[in-house]
Amino acid sequence: NHFIVCGYGRMGHQVCADFEKQRLPYVVIDQNEGVFKNFSSEFGVLLVGDATQDDVLRKAGITRAKAITSVLSSDAANLYIVLSARLLSDRLVIVARAEDSGAEEKLRRVGANKVISPYRISGHRIAQAVMRPTVVNFLEMATLDAHPELQIEEIRLHPNSPYVGKTLRIARIHQDLGIIIVGIVSANGHIQFSPQADTRLEAGDTLITLGRRTQLDQLLRHGSMDEVISPE
Amino acid sequence: NHFIVCGYGRMGHQVCADFEKQRLPYVVIDQNEGVFKNFSSEFGVLLVGDATQDDVLRKAGITRAKAITSVLSSDAANLYIVLSARLLSDRLVIVARAEDSGAEEKLRRVGANKVISPYRISGHRIAQAVMRPTVVNFLEMATLDAHPELQIEEIRLHPNSPYVGKTLRIARIHQDLGIIIVGIVSANGHIQFSPQADTRLEAGDTLITLGRRTQLDQLLRHGSMDEVISPE
Ligand SMILES: [Ca+2]
Ligand SMILES: [Ca+2]
Repeated sequence: NHFIVCGYGRMGHQVCADFEKQRLPYVVIDQNEGVFKNFSSEFGVLLVGDATQDDVLRKAGITRAKAITSVLSSDAANLYIVLSARLLSDRLVIVARAEDSGAEEKLRRVGANKVISPYRISGHRIAQAVMRPTVVNFLEMATLDAHPELQIEEIRLHPNSPYVGKTLRIARIHQDLGIIIVGIVSANGHIQFSPQADTRLEAGDTLITLGRRTQLDQLLRHGSMDEVISPE
Repeated sequence: NHFIVCGYGRMGHQVCADFEKQRLPYVVIDQNEGVFKNFSSEFGVLLVGDATQDDVLRKAGITRAKAITSVLSSDAANLYIVLSARLLSDRLVIVARAEDSGAEEKLRRVGANKVISPYRISGHRIAQAVMRPTVVNFLEMATLDAHPELQIEEIRLHPNSPYVGKTLRIARIHQDLGIIIVGIVSANGHIQFSPQADTRLEAGDTLITLGRRTQLDQLLRHGSMDEVISPE
């Protein structure tokens, strides 16, 4: 139930810092022992080795891991790691970095669930920052966990939740807790945006919520819900 | 009232593509004539030249521009452009790319309104993609303008809007149009997250809204509001 990070360069540093902040256990792999010299961590374990080797991935506990991220600067290395990881585990969540635009499709083809292209993402963000500056600042606050007043979170409704079968009007999540439900993804993958008061909550729904940290914690307790992020 | 893009590399391509998609006029500057050989554009104008030179920035219309983005791969070049642009125009919005972490602070120091670090942003996105996969997919849909069912937009309330002075309960923006107001930024910069029904709308408020494109257009028409993105 831990996370694996392949590559401890600039991007790997950021991924590990985010896991650290969320108090999530992880193993970080890099061939170059030197990159770890200032590593200090409460939740992370170092592994010096070549992540394209199956025995190194096994040593990192890949068969028990929740997810692996491959963030080396070489598309070929990331492709090799993604394919190896997918062959070692069917259910593992795999997220990879792609440098060239052609690599995205290939990484998905060999088993990546999600591919992140730094150039594409940063270019979008820069265009958004001039077109919709308030939206960009707002979403950065909501996703960086830096602002307890504003957090965006996904929450899964258990079958035993008191909210199951109730409409949003009756559940009073916004009225009582100040939490906005911006979307609901049902167990079969159907997405409902901006749900109205007569929307009925079902077991297995994932609610995409926006609210204060304290209010979200209240919702989790009262509603028999799980943060998707929590180790199970 | 146009935008200027300095650097037509991989990131500059993405910025231009986003302006193109939003039908916003822009000038893109690059020293290397070769990078433009496949350029085809309805809203963009090419300028071959060195963007660190004041006369090139003037030729791009910097004194009339709404915003400039400096996305070269060299932090030193971006710093020089940001400083030059700020000296040529006080009110210009300046967004810059930073490669090294130390460059962010320096770019802000010489006048950038916003600095985007590709490594930092991509690392965050990768960590989010394993921690909150549904949120990441949801926000990507909302910000990429690819999904007319879900758009996040910022909308400014004019003094003559019929909504001015009304509470959200009376304005009925969510009930009648299905639009969620996730935040309100007042003219003095105060941010209110997840506003409740008794929140009163004021002239100059920027509403951060989530809704269908057709509903947002209805709100703009009925509410005497402006998309912040629109050329004035
Ligand atoms: Ca948790
Ligand atoms: Ca517009």
